[in-house]
Amino acid sequence: MLKEAIFHRPEGAYAHPAGSRELRVRLRARRGDLIACHLLHGDRYGREEEELRLEKVGSDELFDWFEGVVPSATRRIRYAFYLEGEEGGLWYGERGLSPERGEAGIFQYPYLCEGDRIRVPEWAKDGIVYQIFPDRFCNGDEGNDPVGTEPWDPGARPRSDSFYGGDLQGMIEKLPYLEALGVNVLYLTPIFQSPSNHKYDTTDYYRVDPAFGDAETLKELVRRAHRRGIRVILDAVFNHAGYFFFAFQDVLEKGADSPYADWFFIEGFPVVTEPQPNYETFANGVWNMPKLNTAHPEVRAYLLDVAEYWTREAEIDGWRLDVANEVDHRFWRAFRDRVKGVNPEALIVGEIWHDAGPWLQGDQFDSVMNYLFRDAVLDFFASGKMGPDRFDALLTRSRMLYPEQVTFAMFNLLGSHDTERFLTACGGRLERMRLAVLFQMTYPGMPMIYYGDEVGMTGGTDPDCRRPMVWEEEKQNRELLSFYRRLISLRKELRPLRRGDFRTWLVDPLRNLYGFLRRDGGECVGVLLNNSPQEQEIELDPHPFGGANRLRDALSGKTADAAGRSRLPWRLAPFQGAILAPVE
Amino acid sequence: MLKEAIFHRPEGAYAHPAGSRELRVRLRARRGDLIACHLLHGDRYGREEEELRLEKVGSDELFDWFEGVVPSATRRIRYAFYLEGEEGGLWYGERGLSPERGEAGIFQYPYLCEGDRIRVPEWAKDGIVYQIFPDRFCNGDEGNDPVGTEPWDPGARPRSDSFYGGDLQGMIEKLPYLEALGVNVLYLTPIFQSPSNHKYDTTDYYRVDPAFGDAETLKELVRRAHRRGIRVILDAVFNHAGYFFFAFQDVLEKGADSPYADWFFIEGFPVVTEPQPNYETFANGVWNMPKLNTAHPEVRAYLLDVAEYWTREAEIDGWRLDVANEVDHRFWRAFRDRVKGVNPEALIVGEIWHDAGPWLQGDQFDSVMNYLFRDAVLDFFASGKMGPDRFDALLTRSRMLYPEQVTFAMFNLLGSHDTERFLTACGGRLERMRLAVLFQMTYPGMPMIYYGDEVGMTGGTDPDCRRPMVWEEEKQNRELLSFYRRLISLRKELRPLRRGDFRTWLVDPLRNLYGFLRRDGGECVGVLLNNSPQEQEIELDPHPFGGANRLRDALSGKTADAAGRSRLPWRLAPFQGAILAPVE
Repeated sequence: MLKEAIFHRPEGAYAHPAGSRELRVRLRARRGDLIACHLLHGDRYGREEEELRLEKVGSDELFDWFEGVVPSATRRIRYAFYLEGEEGGLWYGERGLSPERGEAGIFQYPYLCEGDRIRVPEWAKDGIVYQIFPDRFCNGDEGNDPVGTEPWDPGARPRSDSFYGGDLQGMIEKLPYLEALGVNVLYLTPIFQSPSNHKYDTTDYYRVDPAFGDAETLKELVRRAHRRGIRVILDAVFNHAGYFFFAFQDVLEKGADSPYADWFFIEGFPVVTEPQPNYETFANGVWNMPKLNTAHPEVRAYLLDVAEYWTREAEIDGWRLDVANEVDHRFWRAFRDRVKGVNPEALIVGEIWHDAGPWLQGDQFDSVMNYLFRDAVLDFFASGKMGPDRFDALLTRSRMLYPEQVTFAMFNLLGSHDTERFLTACGGRLERMRLAVLFQMTYPGMPMIYYGDEVGMTGGTDPDCRRPMVWEEEKQNRELLSFYRRLISLRKELRPLRRGDFRTWLVDPLRNLYGFLRRDGGECVGVLLNNSPQEQEIELDPHPFGGANRLRDALSGKTADAAGRSRLPWRLAPFQGAILAPVE
Repeated sequence: MLKEAIFHRPEGAYAHPAGSRELRVRLRARRGDLIACHLLHGDRYGREEEELRLEKVGSDELFDWFEGVVPSATRRIRYAFYLEGEEGGLWYGERGLSPERGEAGIFQYPYLCEGDRIRVPEWAKDGIVYQIFPDRFCNGDEGNDPVGTEPWDPGARPRSDSFYGGDLQGMIEKLPYLEALGVNVLYLTPIFQSPSNHKYDTTDYYRVDPAFGDAETLKELVRRAHRRGIRVILDAVFNHAGYFFFAFQDVLEKGADSPYADWFFIEGFPVVTEPQPNYETFANGVWNMPKLNTAHPEVRAYLLDVAEYWTREAEIDGWRLDVANEVDHRFWRAFRDRVKGVNPEALIVGEIWHDAGPWLQGDQFDSVMNYLFRDAVLDFFASGKMGPDRFDALLTRSRMLYPEQVTFAMFNLLGSHDTERFLTACGGRLERMRLAVLFQMTYPGMPMIYYGDEVGMTGGTDPDCRRPMVWEEEKQNRELLSFYRRLISLRKELRPLRRGDFRTWLVDPLRNLYGFLRRDGGECVGVLLNNSPQEQEIELDPHPFGGANRLRDALSGKTADAAGRSRLPWRLAPFQGAILAPVE
């Protein structure tokens, strides 16, 4: 047993509340090292003990992860691991690894406090998200089009300053389309007043941009969406304001005498934008996005009021937080309190492209834009430069970074307004995109569809990924759209795809095959992916489906007799996938 | 290079703000594996990079830790490690270890937010704490003695319900003694109204126990202590209240109809204490300590008001938090905000006996009662069952558990009102206690003296460790007291002992020798400990002292010529230590 590989700490991803009297515990060991991982646990003030055997839940190139849920009537937990290896066992506790239990010491999770529960809205588990870039989705009201609005040409190459006239009324009109597609969460990039088309440079946080409608249109959209079972999430741009934000304008005008001078990070007066802004901005020298000082009590209060106002006023269902990783944790904790105070079912989703552990402990966000998911999917499906072994390793590691609750609430995206479109990343090879979508729709977490992906839209990085939506049916890829609809409806139909745990089932680097199981209570769904350009025959192990007599691929309808077989041949065409479930 | 041993994550102990534009980064590798650990870092939005070589700061049996401070003008940091081993190098980033830099990916510390700075009061670095159990320290006012007060006999064996009449007036009278001893922080166990002698079962959080004095006596104590440069810290018992706390009494009386029924965890009505309490208590069935529901907004508000009230009213310098690990993080974050809002220099110290990482990230506590320190000290000095190698390993690990700031604010204790006294743990062997005290007074963090330890008091676990203080000089161990005074004054004199970093200097398990360096800017102090019953001669390496011509032991006054020598013999008597610093 390789001692240096063993890792546990009674916090975060490795120990977190799973319920009011349950603790989820994880342990990492060298890949292949442990025959069994036992956990001995008891009340911290008592002598009695129970044993729990942890289950291996995943691996990467170096490590295996083990996991289990410790019940505790008193909520006060002490525990130690007994690790069984080929050459004997070791105890593992806070003092380290030892053949002597006393030497190893114990881990403590002192109390499962109600105040520290990880409460992710339950509905997130069933969410299917559709991301809308409002200027480009649908123009429902030509009366509010900005000056210079360009014709709605899905073939157009937008410039960074193009306007196309999309608006909230357009979204209202397209609700039947969205409902038919099957999505149940809309995430809108910013809609508050701003001079740009993307509106990440807010002028007025309290005003819907007139080119998009007004507060009434927003409320109408939310009301009508809710009536169709669709939730609405807005974009909170709190890392920075826009150049025309009243407070920044006051600083520009009055300099150091402005009462708002400390709302920003001003490096000198007078404030200038040329040749370089002498104030801190988003990224490097983006003059129209002055960074907000969220440690300033007035700024905090102002922004928290904004968040509370729209949560209450428009009855929205949550916020996506722009540049969430550059704003202080303190601010986000207060943000969570305020927003959940108004709507405990509101979802809070951070924009974080990297390991988001520090934000996902239950005290700040419920979820993030899951770019780690996208990175893995791009390399496995789109470019094909990664095999199923590495793919599986990256997925496992990204799940093991966070408490389990957030995994089921992740925004699992193939692309966004900030990336090239997925079909473009696939070099236009639709079969690869389809397989990736199949994966996205069967993986734990909320699939997020970037508007237009479902009808085959292409586009390079910003601004090219923001072309006007294709609405003319003859220009839409209707087959792809059907495929999306079919998969969304399967995800809704098969509960394990939404709520089941995840276990790797098949990793075949040689033939580029990947498979996994989603298990929920007694139900099990298996997913197989042939990520190769060859037809492949797989020898399935039907064991995970219990004593099922027949398995059926929910996608193709094909069935196979499983009764009494230990191996079941299953054929997959190139880039084909299957979603297997038992049938009578 | 053992890949499985490499660990870093951009959070907590492994990456935390060291200043407004500085990030402290740590990396763990297998012991002996790395020839060098380089860190390449730059702005997250830029291309330029700088290199920083991390320094090895400590080891345990399995691992080495490397550390460095990354400067960042923009506060937005990306970085990757280049690890140099015997057989070549590897890159290490968020995606893992690889010979290819691109494969390894990067780590990100997105922004050093002002709101997330780790602000531990600067004065803590110079603190020397004296813990007082008020009923047992000094009886300054016999007029307020509780009924049944027993005679002040330091040889007495207190029962769990004994009273001895100690009070705040007594502390006021002994301030000259405390000042002469050299301590500059008093930590008082609870002083608010309660029927017990320990007062961990609060009746009235707003009233000083009449047996101890009143609010005026408290204020007088704080004023007079402050005049002598001594700070005062009180004990906040917020995990549970006392049986006679008004809210609990109301529940006893009115049952489910009490407006306070949800302030506690009541399991059934009527509320009973026999045969077992049908409500949650501290530990198991401690009927007079009903657990408070700190997730309840009214309870939160009540307790936070209490904390704010005394911080403001009595101008105290901080709080020690009882059973801090069983109260929610949410509560403690709010507690910090409220207390620091009144007094930003207040110190917050949790009672946590185990790994306290989750509470020591800058958002909750500044420090904890450092029982990990005590555990190691007991096994090395008192019982001698651990050698200097294991001792050094445990110390290193405990430092590597937390951000650096909190290490300097730890309450490094040898014992407390909750443990047997240290001299008793030493089996009365004073030479062992003296060496441990020497260590305590030269290690990073605040030495905490449990009242009476300095005059040789003994006592087993609670209640025996709570005997009345020995004030008759002929019954005090005056030599030990002088030794304490001498060491405290040396700690004050030699800045590196308070503020210097820590590097292991000598680990000799065969001869039971241990040595370390404290370095502060250009200054260096070396500490040597002979933890054996034999005289030992050490061959010192005077290199860490730069070109010092002579070294002097600040304790014995002995000097030795170091000029031009690479090895310097130094003789230590059994259980003797030395504190070496250069002299002209």
